[in-house]
Amino acid sequence: MTENKQQLLSEMLMSLIENKKYASLRDAMGTMHAADIAAVLEECKKEQVPLIFRLLPKELAAETFTQMEEDRQALLIQSFSDSELKAVVDELYVDDAVDLVEEMPANVVKRILRQADPEKRKLINEILKYPEDSTGSIMTTEYVRLRPDMTVQDAINHIRKTGINKETINTCYVTDRNRKILGIVTMRQLLFSEENTQIREIMTEEVIFALTTEDREKVSLDFVKYDFSAMPVVDEENRLVGIVTIDDVVDVLQEETTEDIEKMGAIMPLEKPYLKTSAFEIFKSRIPWLFILMISAAFTGMIITRFENALSAQIALVASIPMLMGTGGNCGSQSSVTVIRGLSIGEIEFSDILKVLWKEMRVAVLCGIALAVVNMAKLILLDNLGVMVALVISITLLLDVIVAKIVGCTLPLIADKIGLDPAVMASPFITTIVDAISLLIYFEIAVLMLGIAV
Amino acid sequence: MTENKQQLLSEMLMSLIENKKYASLRDAMGTMHAADIAAVLEECKKEQVPLIFRLLPKELAAETFTQMEEDRQALLIQSFSDSELKAVVDELYVDDAVDLVEEMPANVVKRILRQADPEKRKLINEILKYPEDSTGSIMTTEYVRLRPDMTVQDAINHIRKTGINKETINTCYVTDRNRKILGIVTMRQLLFSEENTQIREIMTEEVIFALTTEDREKVSLDFVKYDFSAMPVVDEENRLVGIVTIDDVVDVLQEETTEDIEKMGAIMPLEKPYLKTSAFEIFKSRIPWLFILMISAAFTGMIITRFENALSAQIALVASIPMLMGTGGNCGSQSSVTVIRGLSIGEIEFSDILKVLWKEMRVAVLCGIALAVVNMAKLILLDNLGVMVALVISITLLLDVIVAKIVGCTLPLIADKIGLDPAVMASPFITTIVDAISLLIYFEIAVLMLGIAV
Repeated sequence: MTENKQQLLSEMLMSLIENKKYASLRDAMGTMHAADIAAVLEECKKEQVPLIFRLLPKELAAETFTQMEEDRQALLIQSFSDSELKAVVDELYVDDAVDLVEEMPANVVKRILRQADPEKRKLINEILKYPEDSTGSIMTTEYVRLRPDMTVQDAINHIRKTGINKETINTCYVTDRNRKILGIVTMRQLLFSEENTQIREIMTEEVIFALTTEDREKVSLDFVKYDFSAMPVVDEENRLVGIVTIDDVVDVLQEETTEDIEKMGAIMPLEKPYLKTSAFEIFKSRIPWLFILMISAAFTGMIITRFENALSAQIALVASIPMLMGTGGNCGSQSSVTVIRGLSIGEIEFSDILKVLWKEMRVAVLCGIALAVVNMAKLILLDNLGVMVALVISITLLLDVIVAKIVGCTLPLIADKIGLDPAVMASPFITTIVDAISLLIYFEIAVLMLGIAV
Repeated sequence: MTENKQQLLSEMLMSLIENKKYASLRDAMGTMHAADIAAVLEECKKEQVPLIFRLLPKELAAETFTQMEEDRQALLIQSFSDSELKAVVDELYVDDAVDLVEEMPANVVKRILRQADPEKRKLINEILKYPEDSTGSIMTTEYVRLRPDMTVQDAINHIRKTGINKETINTCYVTDRNRKILGIVTMRQLLFSEENTQIREIMTEEVIFALTTEDREKVSLDFVKYDFSAMPVVDEENRLVGIVTIDDVVDVLQEETTEDIEKMGAIMPLEKPYLKTSAFEIFKSRIPWLFILMISAAFTGMIITRFENALSAQIALVASIPMLMGTGGNCGSQSSVTVIRGLSIGEIEFSDILKVLWKEMRVAVLCGIALAVVNMAKLILLDNLGVMVALVISITLLLDVIVAKIVGCTLPLIADKIGLDPAVMASPFITTIVDAISLLIYFEIAVLMLGIAV
C-alpha cells in the first residue's frame, strides 16, 4: 500500500519534471516527505537536480539534502551560489553537517565551512576531531540543557525559547554550572508535574551515559538494550558535550551489520552503496580475500599430492572429497555464523566459551552421527561400495563434522578476545582450515583401514 | 566505562543477594535500570528470582519483567499470587503484554488474561489476531488521539489528563469521529504554537502510515528511511487502530537480520537466544540443510567418477580440485552476500538485475584474470607443472570465477522475485551449485586440451 503510493508519487513527479510543470511540481513536493523527494532526485537527470531542488521550501530542502547520496550532494553544492549554500547549511543539524563535511572533497568542505556561521563552524570542528568509530563522531551538540533550580514552568518556557533548533526536546539534560550532568528530565515528566515543582525534584538522577571516545557500535547496542531514544555523551572530565539520538543509532547498527555480513562473505567493507560503487572498487574489496584463500587452498592440494598413491589405488576415495569438504565447510560455517552474530548483538561473550564448546560438541555428535549413517547407507546401497571403503568415508565424515564445529565456534571467540573482528572468522576462512584438516583425517584413516601404502 | 560500571553493579548485587542483605538490595536496585536488573535476575539462582523480584517497586518491576527471558518469566508467574500477577499485568503496555502472551504456555496465558482488566484483555486479544509477521502484531493501541477542532491548550490539557499510560506523547494523532486519520501533531509543534491555535492549523496532513496487514520488516525499513520515531497503523477502512514505535522497530530489524544471517549460514532460524537453546533444538535447526547439501554434493562426486580415467592419467588434476572449488565458492558467496544484504535493506531491487549482472561480470573478469595469472605462475614456477596442465587449471579458474559470480548474484534476485527468501540462496547453496559447474568445466577443458580419453 505505502509502496504503491510512493511509486505513484514518484512517477507523477517524474512526469511533471519531464513536462516542465514547475509550479505543480513545487506544490506536489511541498506535501511529500524528504526521503521520497531525495529518491526522485537520485533518479532524474543530473542537470535537472539544481532546478528541482530550488523549488523546495527552505526546511524541506535541507532535509531532502541530508537524505541524498554524496555524489548528488556534491553536484548540488557545485551549482549553489554562496547564499544558497548558506541557506542549506543554516538549516542542517550539526550532526548532519558533520556527516556532509566528512564525505565531501576538501575544496567543497572549505566552501561549506566558510558559509556556516561561526558558532556552527566551531561545533562542526569539535565533532570532526573525534575518531570515525567513536561515539563523539555520531553525537549532536544541539540538546536542551536545564538547571536543577528551575521550576517546571521555567523549564517549559526555556524550551519554548531555545528548543526550536534542538534535535530533540523530549529528553532534557540537567547540569550544574560546569556542565557536569546531574540528571535527565523527559517532556512527559515535565507535563505530568506541577508547574512550580523544581526540576531537581523530578529529574532522574541515575543517568546512563557514554564517553565521547567509546566505540559507537558498543554504545548503540547499549542504547537498544535500554530502549533509549537519546543518550548523553560526556568527556573525560564528566562534562556533558552532546547527545546521541535513536536515528543515528539505527544507522550505525545497520552499517555495522552490513560490514559484518560483508566480512563474513570475505569482502572488505564498501564505503558506498553497491550500485553506486564502481566495478574496480568492488574488485579491490574482493580480491584480497580471494588471494589469501586461494593460496591457503594450496595446502589442501599439497595434502592430496602427498597421498597420490592411495588415491590412484582407490579412485572411489576421490569422488567423496567434494562431499566431505562441503559438509565440513557447512558445519563450520553454521557454528561460526551463530557465534559471530551472538557476539555482535552481545548475546555471547568470551567467558561463555566453555558453554559454547560443550553445546557445539553435543550438536556436532548428533549431526555427525545422523549424516554418517545416511551416508553409509547411500554408499553401500546406491553406490555399491565395499563396506570398508564406505566405513572410511563415514568415519571421516563424523570426525569432520566434530572438528568443523569446534573450529567454527572457537575461532570467532578467540578473535574477539585478542581484539580482532570475529566476522573475519566466518565461512570462507573456516572452510579453508576445515578443508585441510578433514582431508588429513580422511587419508590417515584410509591408509590405516585400507592398508594402502602412502 | 559504562561496561565496567554495569559489571560492578551486577557484582555488587550478586554479593548482596548471597549475603541476604535485602534492605540494601532494594535500595540499590531502585537506582538501577530495568535491563541491568533483568540481567542479574538471569544470572542468579532460580529459587532467588521471586524473592528479589518482590523487592522492586511496582513500575520498575513491570519494566524488569518485560526485559527478562521467557523461561525466567514463566518461573516468576508460577510463583506469583493472583494479585501479584495482576499488579504486573496492569503496569505492562499492551504491546509488551501481547509479547508475553505469545511466548507463554497456554495455562499461563489463561492466568494472565484472567488478571488483565477487561479493557486491556480486549486490546490484547485484538492484537493477537494479527499474523506473526504483520505490522498489526507489533503495534500498540495506546496512543494520544486529538480532534482537529481542539486548541493547542485543549490538546496539552487532554494529554496531561489521558497521556500518562500512552507509550508516546511526542507524536499525537488527529482523527475525525470515525477514527479516520486527518493528520499528526508533535509535542514540538504544540509547544512552539500559540495556545489558542486550532490543531487543524498546525497538524501535518501528509501522513505516512502502515496497514495492519503489511509485513513488519517492510514497515520497519520505511520507518528507518523516514527517520520516524512513531508511525500510525490503519485498518482496511483507513481507520487508525494503533501505532508502531521505534523501540519495536529496532527489535524487528535486529531479529530479521539475525534470521537472515542464520539462513545465510544454512541454519533454520532459532526461536530463542543460542545459549538458551538446547543442543537437540540446535541440531534440529542445522541438520536439514546439512542433509540437502550433502546429497547435492553427491552430484559433484558423480562428476568425478565419470572422469575417473582422466584423473588416474593426470593425478595432478586432483590436487587442484580443492582450490578450484574453494575459489568458486568464495566468489559466489561474495556476490550472493552483497545482493542479499542489498535486497534486505532495500538498496537493490529485482528491477536492478541487469545493472547488477553487468557490474558482477566486470568484477568477475577482473578477479578471474588476477587469480588466474597468479595461479599460473605458481603452478609453473613452484609446482613445476607442465604449461598445458597449468593452463587447463588457470582457464578453469577464470571461467569458474565468472560462473560463480553470475550464479551468486542472480539466484538471490530470482528467489526474491518469486517470493522465496533470498537469504537461503547464500554461500552454502551457491557453493554446491558452483562446485558442480566448476568441476564440469574443469574436466571438459582437461579432456579437450590434454587429449585424455574419458
